[in-house]
Amino acid sequence: MAQLGTQSIQFEEAPYILSSASVVGAKEGEGPLGKKFDVVGQDDQFGEETWEAAESALQKEAAVLAMGKAGLKKDAIRYIFGGDLLGQSIATTFGLMELNVPLFGLFGACSTAGEALSLAAMTVAAGYADQVLAVTSSHFASAEKQFRFPLEYANQRPLSACWTVTGGGAFVVGRKGKTGAAAPSDGKTEAAAPSGGKTGARITGITTGRVMDYGVKDSMNMGAAMAPAACDTIYRNFLDFGRGPQDYDRIVTGDLGYVGREILIKLLQEKGFDITSAHMDCGIEIYDRKAQDTHAGGSGCGCSAVTLSAHILPQIIKGAYRRVLFVPTGALLSKVSFNEGQTVPGIAHGVVIEHG
Amino acid sequence: MAQLGTQSIQFEEAPYILSSASVVGAKEGEGPLGKKFDVVGQDDQFGEETWEAAESALQKEAAVLAMGKAGLKKDAIRYIFGGDLLGQSIATTFGLMELNVPLFGLFGACSTAGEALSLAAMTVAAGYADQVLAVTSSHFASAEKQFRFPLEYANQRPLSACWTVTGGGAFVVGRKGKTGAAAPSDGKTEAAAPSGGKTGARITGITTGRVMDYGVKDSMNMGAAMAPAACDTIYRNFLDFGRGPQDYDRIVTGDLGYVGREILIKLLQEKGFDITSAHMDCGIEIYDRKAQDTHAGGSGCGCSAVTLSAHILPQIIKGAYRRVLFVPTGALLSKVSFNEGQTVPGIAHGVVIEHG
Repeated sequence: MAQLGTQSIQFEEAPYILSSASVVGAKEGEGPLGKKFDVVGQDDQFGEETWEAAESALQKEAAVLAMGKAGLKKDAIRYIFGGDLLGQSIATTFGLMELNVPLFGLFGACSTAGEALSLAAMTVAAGYADQVLAVTSSHFASAEKQFRFPLEYANQRPLSACWTVTGGGAFVVGRKGKTGAAAPSDGKTEAAAPSGGKTGARITGITTGRVMDYGVKDSMNMGAAMAPAACDTIYRNFLDFGRGPQDYDRIVTGDLGYVGREILIKLLQEKGFDITSAHMDCGIEIYDRKAQDTHAGGSGCGCSAVTLSAHILPQIIKGAYRRVLFVPTGALLSKVSFNEGQTVPGIAHGVVIEHG
Repeated sequence: MAQLGTQSIQFEEAPYILSSASVVGAKEGEGPLGKKFDVVGQDDQFGEETWEAAESALQKEAAVLAMGKAGLKKDAIRYIFGGDLLGQSIATTFGLMELNVPLFGLFGACSTAGEALSLAAMTVAAGYADQVLAVTSSHFASAEKQFRFPLEYANQRPLSACWTVTGGGAFVVGRKGKTGAAAPSDGKTEAAAPSGGKTGARITGITTGRVMDYGVKDSMNMGAAMAPAACDTIYRNFLDFGRGPQDYDRIVTGDLGYVGREILIKLLQEKGFDITSAHMDCGIEIYDRKAQDTHAGGSGCGCSAVTLSAHILPQIIKGAYRRVLFVPTGALLSKVSFNEGQTVPGIAHGVVIEHG
């Protein structure tokens, strides 16, 4: 049965993540994961004249790179699921336009990587496509312009603020593992990395998030705004799949940062689950907090996408992690809703990725 | 086989549109379709303090009404597919939050009704859910503020400009027809209307659109920007399904208006298909061009959604139309991309709806 509990799906034939790619900016390249990314841009403008065009460029580069790693031409990609943070998703439109592939445009704020992978897996598992692409991006400068202040204004940032990751991540999700992909017991896959064109990662289930609003109104404290959504999705995943923290090698949130992480752990403890030892947050992993002055951690659609691609998937593929719950988190606000005094609700989409 | 041609899907077990609802503003209520809408607001603020909150209110009202018509409580809806035109989709976030249903947020500009119905049908046909909801909205005042000028500025509008529809449309898509739904030969369905809780409309296939850019840069001429995308999706639908204009009782575009319609018909003629007699455009249907001073016609996510719900579905259900190709069209621009001198690419998502 595909439907599980109230909001999850378990795939009878779990789709494979055939390949993935990460393209980041200079700051991310200087961080703890720097050497793991596929491409580190020397110039955050990526050769373009505007920040928005720069974001489009890195999204496209990630997409093309992921297809290349899977040995697929764009004609072999039936659908793209993609989105970004900018109003009317212009980074995605202008970034992916030239690929000329049917596009399902998404908006899930920084949870987009989870939403895109969920729909990609649903589409492939149902037989609607043999290969699809899930893509997302964010850019520090285009996001600051979109949500806060122009960079030239040089505003100060509170310690609870996150730093939007300049990065694009792309994933080819497909029906069949490529040559070299094998069952967990196959020793050959232990050394396979995503860049090798082999795969050992399958999306075995998803838990789709609900919008959660705890009344946080501070757009400089996204972690607090998103933690309740992460809590709800993880809790629902546990109930729907009959699992607990011990069943996952890692439970990876997108960009809660240091502030949000504490709240999430506390909220789940109140529900009877202690995820402290299994929890990992992409926003915490991607920067060196002290050396890089990034305050509460990284954020943005790109944060979880590039960290999954460069840092987590290789561990799943080589079997160091057997099962991971990937839960990108999104803060659902706009400049308009914020200025009109609205709260900042959150959403989080869970994707179960297993070695295999 | 579910996959058809290069970008279409044919459903082996076609999902039903179990119910639908339309909520519109005063101007739409005064138009030619005025009496067909479920709710016509007397006040375009819908009791709210901001235009954005007004749009959220009408989206929520449409969703609740559609569920009510299908005799379903929100617990029976497994997923919502929804989106709108506003930056970061705030109308959807704040409109649907209280429903507390897992949400896949979409951005397809004014093609969102087609994108949402496509993903809803894919989800139901694959057995991932028994019932899901597809929702979208637009609001004249929130859209003007988002894309053009504040209303207080009282700018003049060129004749090629469209008028954004104030309206929200919602559709419950489900696996099984309700009691009363029957095969085309069943006389009983002839009188059934969506409001009767009966159904006679099934989504038998979809054709997902690609981003098309013909270099139009005029944000006051959306019809011209979107016509190439409509052409591409309709043409692909013909090829993928092995059909032509004669196989559809109506080919219904979303909001091309008078300018875009002419271009679409010409572009398809160049490809060997004449859709003149089958073509209908929601943006043309919804207003009285002369009496209502709406220039090129209606536009916005709500335009195609409310017109499908109030004007087209009843014809399908009673069998007056046996097969319709519904093709909402979206212009993929933002204020930022426009001000940076970018073009206005378009996208169109095709949904085949049949009596049955």
